[in-house]
Amino acid sequence: MNSVSRPADQLRDVQIELGYIPSNPASVLYKSGGTIVLCTASLEASVPPWMAGKGKGWVTAEYNMLPGSTSPRKSRDRGGKIDGRTTEIQRLIGRSLRAIIDLNLLGENSITVDCDVLQADGGTRTASITGGFIALAKAVETAVPGSRVGDGPIRDSVAAISAGLIDDVVRLDLDYQLDSAADVDMNVVMTGSGKFVEIQGTGEEATFDDAQLTELLRLARKGIAGLTTKQMDALA
Amino acid sequence: MNSVSRPADQLRDVQIELGYIPSNPASVLYKSGGTIVLCTASLEASVPPWMAGKGKGWVTAEYNMLPGSTSPRKSRDRGGKIDGRTTEIQRLIGRSLRAIIDLNLLGENSITVDCDVLQADGGTRTASITGGFIALAKAVETAVPGSRVGDGPIRDSVAAISAGLIDDVVRLDLDYQLDSAADVDMNVVMTGSGKFVEIQGTGEEATFDDAQLTELLRLARKGIAGLTTKQMDALA
Amino acid sequence: MNSVSRPADQLRDVQIELGYIPSNPASVLYKSGGTIVLCTASLEASVPPWMAGKGKGWVTAEYNMLPGSTSPRKSRDRGGKIDGRTTEIQRLIGRSLRAIIDLNLLGENSITVDCDVLQADGGTRTASITGGFIALAKAVETAVPGSRVGDGPIRDSVAAISAGLIDDVVRLDLDYQLDSAADVDMNVVMTGSGKFVEIQGTGEEATFDDAQLTELLRLARKGIAGLTTKQMDALA
Amino acid sequence: MNSVSRPADQLRDVQIELGYIPSNPASVLYKSGGTIVLCTASLEASVPPWMAGKGKGWVTAEYNMLPGSTSPRKSRDRGGKIDGRTTEIQRLIGRSLRAIIDLNLLGENSITVDCDVLQADGGTRTASITGGFIALAKAVETAVPGSRVGDGPIRDSVAAISAGLIDDVVRLDLDYQLDSAADVDMNVVMTGSGKFVEIQGTGEEATFDDAQLTELLRLARKGIAGLTTKQMDALA
Amino acid sequence: MNSVSRPADQLRDVQIELGYIPSNPASVLYKSGGTIVLCTASLEASVPPWMAGKGKGWVTAEYNMLPGSTSPRKSRDRGGKIDGRTTEIQRLIGRSLRAIIDLNLLGENSITVDCDVLQADGGTRTASITGGFIALAKAVETAVPGSRVGDGPIRDSVAAISAGLIDDVVRLDLDYQLDSAADVDMNVVMTGSGKFVEIQGTGEEATFDDAQLTELLRLARKGIAGLTTKQMDALA
Amino acid sequence: MNSVSRPADQLRDVQIELGYIPSNPASVLYKSGGTIVLCTASLEASVPPWMAGKGKGWVTAEYNMLPGSTSPRKSRDRGGKIDGRTTEIQRLIGRSLRAIIDLNLLGENSITVDCDVLQADGGTRTASITGGFIALAKAVETAVPGSRVGDGPIRDSVAAISAGLIDDVVRLDLDYQLDSAADVDMNVVMTGSGKFVEIQGTGEEATFDDAQLTELLRLARKGIAGLTTKQMDALA
Repeated sequence: MNSVSRPADQLRDVQIELGYIPSNPASVLYKSGGTIVLCTASLEASVPPWMAGKGKGWVTAEYNMLPGSTSPRKSRDRGGKIDGRTTEIQRLIGRSLRAIIDLNLLGENSITVDCDVLQADGGTRTASITGGFIALAKAVETAVPGSRVGDGPIRDSVAAISAGLIDDVVRLDLDYQLDSAADVDMNVVMTGSGKFVEIQGTGEEATFDDAQLTELLRLARKGIAGLTTKQMDALA
Repeated sequence: MNSVSRPADQLRDVQIELGYIPSNPASVLYKSGGTIVLCTASLEASVPPWMAGKGKGWVTAEYNMLPGSTSPRKSRDRGGKIDGRTTEIQRLIGRSLRAIIDLNLLGENSITVDCDVLQADGGTRTASITGGFIALAKAVETAVPGSRVGDGPIRDSVAAISAGLIDDVVRLDLDYQLDSAADVDMNVVMTGSGKFVEIQGTGEEATFDDAQLTELLRLARKGIAGLTTKQMDALA
Repeated sequence: MNSVSRPADQLRDVQIELGYIPSNPASVLYKSGGTIVLCTASLEASVPPWMAGKGKGWVTAEYNMLPGSTSPRKSRDRGGKIDGRTTEIQRLIGRSLRAIIDLNLLGENSITVDCDVLQADGGTRTASITGGFIALAKAVETAVPGSRVGDGPIRDSVAAISAGLIDDVVRLDLDYQLDSAADVDMNVVMTGSGKFVEIQGTGEEATFDDAQLTELLRLARKGIAGLTTKQMDALA
Repeated sequence: MNSVSRPADQLRDVQIELGYIPSNPASVLYKSGGTIVLCTASLEASVPPWMAGKGKGWVTAEYNMLPGSTSPRKSRDRGGKIDGRTTEIQRLIGRSLRAIIDLNLLGENSITVDCDVLQADGGTRTASITGGFIALAKAVETAVPGSRVGDGPIRDSVAAISAGLIDDVVRLDLDYQLDSAADVDMNVVMTGSGKFVEIQGTGEEATFDDAQLTELLRLARKGIAGLTTKQMDALA
Repeated sequence: MNSVSRPADQLRDVQIELGYIPSNPASVLYKSGGTIVLCTASLEASVPPWMAGKGKGWVTAEYNMLPGSTSPRKSRDRGGKIDGRTTEIQRLIGRSLRAIIDLNLLGENSITVDCDVLQADGGTRTASITGGFIALAKAVETAVPGSRVGDGPIRDSVAAISAGLIDDVVRLDLDYQLDSAADVDMNVVMTGSGKFVEIQGTGEEATFDDAQLTELLRLARKGIAGLTTKQMDALA
Repeated sequence: MNSVSRPADQLRDVQIELGYIPSNPASVLYKSGGTIVLCTASLEASVPPWMAGKGKGWVTAEYNMLPGSTSPRKSRDRGGKIDGRTTEIQRLIGRSLRAIIDLNLLGENSITVDCDVLQADGGTRTASITGGFIALAKAVETAVPGSRVGDGPIRDSVAAISAGLIDDVVRLDLDYQLDSAADVDMNVVMTGSGKFVEIQGTGEEATFDDAQLTELLRLARKGIAGLTTKQMDALA
């Protein structure tokens, strides 16, 4: 279903493949329409030096687009400079995941969630959060046997979606074509229980008013609810 | 007035010194309580290669904290890696300024707005936007003689302020002490005419609900109105 | 089949999935036992400046291991320094692919073959060459419609395999466990018609004699023949 | 007073504002004509690893020109490479300050003197030394209560000035206009008691003879005496 | 003797000057025809952190071409990126030297063998190995008094030579002129007792068959025997 | 002759080997006592972009210490950061050489003078200038046939020497042992006709007075005269 025919308040088709990397159960291939992200969570039995000895754990994230994920090909971040967009996105993913985890219950373990985009068609940061959560939850199960979402280090689920304003119409879940046309782009990160974790609304050389903000948030909330269900199904 | 005694809905004291660098009229020393930012706008009669020949201008921003602006001393970003926070902030400043400028009316000129923090006491990014706008407006007056805010390349003014949630109380304009204690930190960028440019609300390992969001935005709008008045007075 | 039970002269199980990235027909998911490499070939209608105007094309390769492809997690090459092993491998892949392509028949087009390792279990460089060839051949079909292997820019096929010496036994196709135990490690790159492109034999703090060399090469030749068949089947 | 009318043996007007950064008493805004440098000294209760356990302190300096300090705008040193001129200058400042301090009396404390140029009109390195000394002296007062210049870690004062040869006339204290025209440029660093710390005389694609050297040094000595008085007044 | 007149199976003239750097007996000026390499071995009484406490030593190598060693001048590797060729070569030198040393007998000492090319006329990597071995052997004599090649940490000698295929003729020891014309370039590293350490045969956009491989290896073996004699004479 | 027995006003033994790199006549092996520097001048028939079209030439210099030139071994400047000392020295060499060359007579040619220290025993920067001048003069002969020192682009010769203050004794030409003991270290660059090009006198956590300065300069002038004779003999 292309973006023109998809109703304005509807998510793209989502597919979640758990254990995609056979050697790592905490690996998830997350597809949302044409966007494909490989999320893997790696557990290490130590924490960064500045956290040592506090009995707490740490969660961080890295984001990367593979060169072949987009056309024209994207150059690798190898020149010593990570581009600003990459930095922003991986900080957002990390904060979002830390918002729903109780680091005190994780023990002195570190989890790195890597989100590598295999194919990019818009919404790669929100897919990374939504898929990254599933990988994180699986890694936590390994670190803290018996823990489940809501009972153990993972206090709640977390998912993310975009909404945007295109020619004065508010739309949910922007693919590349919609994103390019959007005057306002909003990313919302929210817990399974409906609390905001992060709101980032940006007018691209444009502005928006209170009423538009309200409608953007309403659609995003609806989308998150749908994603939460899919996350829970995958982890069940 | 320290942050404890300041009412929850009140801005810090703001002072604006235009022409602080004698050789550059588009230089502004912007003080908000203990936060001091030097904003200078430099005009160059050309645009980046990827924009050449379109008859349009370009506006960008750089943000930096001087080593002595904070204690302990902050190391300089000289090792080839700009830290992620710096990157995020300067991209935000650039987007905010571009939201209110009509690049088509600027001619093939580039303006770089440098925001160097001399003393940091919280809110350096919002101070950079609010002060940076004034420097930008002065530089545009030089590039396009006779232009004023609302009549020429500068379509509207823009200012920014933070609000936050501290022990379930919503407060405006967080200084360092408040910011450290905040569970939710929101930065709002808004035009003089009351339209949103950017909303960034972040739960620091915490979440927030709809009612709290509404109150955060209400306070921010009030603060922006106050800053807009000060900006216009400075430019008058 | 693990490496202990696999006969010494037998390849691992190979699976080739063409068009793995839906938007790019020149994308190949190549699996050799537990090693999984995503090879994508990106075509650009220009050549590097030093080649311009000669009417010739260019082919280059990049190699990368995803952080989650190995345990413990591999750090990304983001600090401005590509590690030496990565550099060596991607230069080898590039030379191998250029050995079988007639750049004069490619036109002024560049093809970059990206080999991203999703799961590493030994033999990632040879898998990258073998899978990368398939991606390259598909990209050439797009650049030069109607061309096939042996008729057009692609003069021959190319594939690669390892052989090694473990406790004085010569074995084909080393997985991670075998590679770690090997005293001598040899990588052979060969065309479909049985010509050598590259031989790299290395004693790891060890040496080898003429008879061992002969046997290593014999096994490698046998392995390459098997891989060539699989490549041709995939492209058929 | 512009450089044309100022007598050849006279200093520019100097203004010294101590405690310019309210939170740091060891901060100095130093103005010499159109050159404005913010010097801040930051004290840390430790020394670099290679000095630990010797009971001695350490003093170092960093120099930087803000982008807006000059026209056209100066790019930031962010690309991983500090330009050679910056390196030379900050090493000179550090050596000059260490020449007058008894590190044995400082305890295991480090002081970093940051010299950030807000406006550049020639003589920024000498202004950094002269102003940096004042910031250093204030920081030492904090580290070693009761110490004064000449009695405690600070054995003597230190100041610096330039002199140059322009159309065969020897002139003191070159501003940008004079510096650009100078055939020979000499920087002299001297203690309050009249001893040389450093002499750097450079013919810019030119040379100079003994008599000219003597006159350059005579003028510099005179200038330093004037600066020493101003330093002592500021610290009184 | 230029490369045209030299018989196809003959080495270039080799000269070895031991103790070239007067202060370091483990320094060797190695000349092979027009190729001149300065090899120095530096001994340090410690090992890298990851090897500490094992009672073993470590040997590593660095390779560099001086800017004036070739025409046009070669830029220095100072931009933070060592070029791929340099990386490959110094890894090869290091592996080759470690193949003949018993690190367990070296004690917790590190030896770095630096190979700096003063003049480049082809074969700099093989000259570096052959000359570097002599420097290494001298440094080991210092670290382990009384040890000799074959009796102590140095189990065997090691040397290297190239062979190549030029217009279907197999030739030994390629100088720059021959190397530029070669379709196949093979570097062989071999011990004094005739065992292979490393074989690297590369078709430069070309391929080679079994018979050619056999002949390339036969010539290389002959060349290595000649070099071994020279090494032993120099060390005697 | 070691530094203790050498009279205070006497140079070390100097040896100059022209054409040390057989393929480059503008290569000089310069020895001053135990200090050995290889100076090569490379000519390129173009100038940097910022100088193009002015009909003028350009001269620049690079300085480097080989790892084996000193003990303990010096790490290479490969990490993307050239250390400050290296930067200072190569800028000094470049300025010194440009002081005696008429770039207008050089045509649009660039000459890079590389000074690579093979063995370091103090005075490497002055040896680099003195030896570098000879290499430069030879390269100019190639670029501008028939030119000689004083008649053509090279207006005068240039040489450099150090002098220092050790236990209140003024000494000429400091080797490593003397340099380590010196309280004041002065480097003087002077033309063959006795004009100063550069004076750099530094108190290493020490100071010096007028009488000492006079004596340091007198000795340096005497040393330069001796070096000039040797330079002219070498070029004759």
